Amino acid sequence: MEGIRDKVAIIGMGCTKFGELWDKSVDDLIIDATSEACEDAGIELKDVQAAWLGTVFSGHTAISLSFPLKLQYIPVTRVENMCATGTEAIRGAAYAVAAGVCDIALAVGVEKLKDTGWSGVQPTNVVGTSTMGTSATDLEFSPPAMFALLAQRYFHNYKLDSDEGKRLLAEITVKNHHNGSLNPKAHFQNEVTVEQVMKAPIVAWPLGVLDSCGVSDGAAAAIVTRADMAKNFRDDPIYIKSLAISVGARQGQMMQNYDFAHVEENVRGSRMAYAEAGIKKPRKELSMAEVHDCFTIHEMLIYEDLGWSPRGRAKEDIEAGTFTLKGELPVNTDGGLKCFGHPLGASGLRMLYEVYKQLQGKAGQRQVKNPKLGLTHNLGGNLGGAICSVTILGNSMG
Amino acid sequence: MEGIRDKVAIIGMGCTKFGELWDKSVDDLIIDATSEACEDAGIELKDVQAAWLGTVFSGHTAISLSFPLKLQYIPVTRVENMCATGTEAIRGAAYAVAAGVCDIALAVGVEKLKDTGWSGVQPTNVVGTSTMGTSATDLEFSPPAMFALLAQRYFHNYKLDSDEGKRLLAEITVKNHHNGSLNPKAHFQNEVTVEQVMKAPIVAWPLGVLDSCGVSDGAAAAIVTRADMAKNFRDDPIYIKSLAISVGARQGQMMQNYDFAHVEENVRGSRMAYAEAGIKKPRKELSMAEVHDCFTIHEMLIYEDLGWSPRGRAKEDIEAGTFTLKGELPVNTDGGLKCFGHPLGASGLRMLYEVYKQLQGKAGQRQVKNPKLGLTHNLGGNLGGAICSVTILGNSMG
Repeated sequence: MEGIRDKVAIIGMGCTKFGELWDKSVDDLIIDATSEACEDAGIELKDVQAAWLGTVFSGHTAISLSFPLKLQYIPVTRVENMCATGTEAIRGAAYAVAAGVCDIALAVGVEKLKDTGWSGVQPTNVVGTSTMGTSATDLEFSPPAMFALLAQRYFHNYKLDSDEGKRLLAEITVKNHHNGSLNPKAHFQNEVTVEQVMKAPIVAWPLGVLDSCGVSDGAAAAIVTRADMAKNFRDDPIYIKSLAISVGARQGQMMQNYDFAHVEENVRGSRMAYAEAGIKKPRKELSMAEVHDCFTIHEMLIYEDLGWSPRGRAKEDIEAGTFTLKGELPVNTDGGLKCFGHPLGASGLRMLYEVYKQLQGKAGQRQVKNPKLGLTHNLGGNLGGAICSVTILGNSMG
Repeated sequence: MEGIRDKVAIIGMGCTKFGELWDKSVDDLIIDATSEACEDAGIELKDVQAAWLGTVFSGHTAISLSFPLKLQYIPVTRVENMCATGTEAIRGAAYAVAAGVCDIALAVGVEKLKDTGWSGVQPTNVVGTSTMGTSATDLEFSPPAMFALLAQRYFHNYKLDSDEGKRLLAEITVKNHHNGSLNPKAHFQNEVTVEQVMKAPIVAWPLGVLDSCGVSDGAAAAIVTRADMAKNFRDDPIYIKSLAISVGARQGQMMQNYDFAHVEENVRGSRMAYAEAGIKKPRKELSMAEVHDCFTIHEMLIYEDLGWSPRGRAKEDIEAGTFTLKGELPVNTDGGLKCFGHPLGASGLRMLYEVYKQLQGKAGQRQVKNPKLGLTHNLGGNLGGAICSVTILGNSMG
């Protein structure tokens, strides 16, 4: 098996503004994101030969996509993989193109998360509880609690005192809000200070409200085609280098030697992705990344899990500004989950939208210099078993 | 685009007994179906490189599959497309293999439909209401009502009086129960008479309880690999000839000239499948078929929608026994939804299990003579927009 590398290209993408979109229906969001993607690709909707919808709560079945877009009699499939749902939509579309069953495929991710009431049962606009179907996967603790445990254990293992640890996490928030302040599509477009983050109400120690992503609505879409056809559509198609997903099953992280200071699926998923993309030195070869900063501690762990900082030494890179917009490896250049919230089905494609625009040199004030390869990362589930998807895009073949 | 034909083969399948399985959990059903599939393929679970789970209600996310099977860190994806969900699972797996991203993939479909309470709100064990996510797809009438309207209009258009029409439908039940009586995996394994069907309580005229499929639990699984590797695993692999899905969007069937006596998605989906499989004369070329007999009238419409009987003339073929076990084109040889019920995520793969066994000559008392090509058909959604999947398998390449 040779992998997906350079078989499929993205030729158009769209992304709505994210936020509390009370005046938009799910259908509206689907139409807005898809229209932008089609326009960007220079195609019409009737050119789409097959489609994939990623949503957790905002629709069941393909009909939730076929109806608003008036897709007539083509194949449409719904995929769901909790926080990795949006990425699964493009994975379905890309595999179909690579399999030779269609030449132009659409992937749409959407969620009106505000409508689910998740914010209503949480102390703040924090992604709170995951609902899963089988008792086997119900681990009776909420995401803030789970990530707080990881944070406390990380601080303990690497001898950070609480204040020092919390301050490092705050730097991540400050970075992501700075990036979000430059992004008209972000939910939150304000800068924040370390002091504000430190003083924000605590959700689960050491994580406060400003360590946590919000609850928002949004949609994003991508049009993919065969890599060898991509330049028929545009001069700057973006090539898919890898589409990795790693799903754990409890016993991995509940093993006796688990350090409770990393997420094993992040490690496995990223290594799969680097192998598929032919990347040997990710920190050097990647130009930028969009990662799953549901809580600041997770972004900190990701620096290590994905092989960018040595274990226990994310601190040094945070202090050196490695992951800022002008740093060595800019992370969450669009503002991340922190500024976009996390409408589950949309997030993966929203991240890809930023990488796509960056690789085309069209990211405006957030543009990173001379990018070649960009990565997106999602994590769903919990410590008992998580879904980690890692996607890598590049702006040239080979 | 060349399609999926002869790129992927099924090398193992498993299927649980279907029925009211109060003593089995979702995990149990997944394990039972997958174990049979792995044993049949002569592989171990650790040989599986990627997996797809199809379920509507019995689980969210990949973790619902990774946990019971203890799949460690491989890609696992959940798909959902209402009544076509099981077929979507194998479609995902087959496209990934054809795309070259994995060599051995697993597809599992499961549903504990009894646990959803669907039977509790219906007058009988009848698949009753579909739940969909957006208001756009909620057409406020139940499946029995929808199919009853089709039946009444069909009778009207083709000048069948009520008694004659109802008797023809009863013949379909009698056939499917006869087939089910030969199948130890069926939920209902009893024969019924035309008189019993005619006198059964009415659900929505002309459809009675015995025109309707039951509500049951079950699971089925398939192992797929590259067609060129299949004979490394077994002498009699079964090749995928097509994997078509056609999804409508209301305006198709609500068009002014709609006759209310067919399902347009059935027509489109089957034509896509025949084209992909290279089938010109489906009635002659197909050896057998498993179709979506949620209600008897639908099986009758399918004879015409799929191009086996001329419009309005299914009557003649029913009377001639064309679709019986010893007829020209045996349909629902395993007993169909009528005898298996319709655990949504499982049905598509349960149908494929029967075709797979038939094409290998291993269907026991139900074996059709010298089969070469077999078809499965699912329909989900409603008249406002339906999902029709049509899959064709064959026991030789080319």
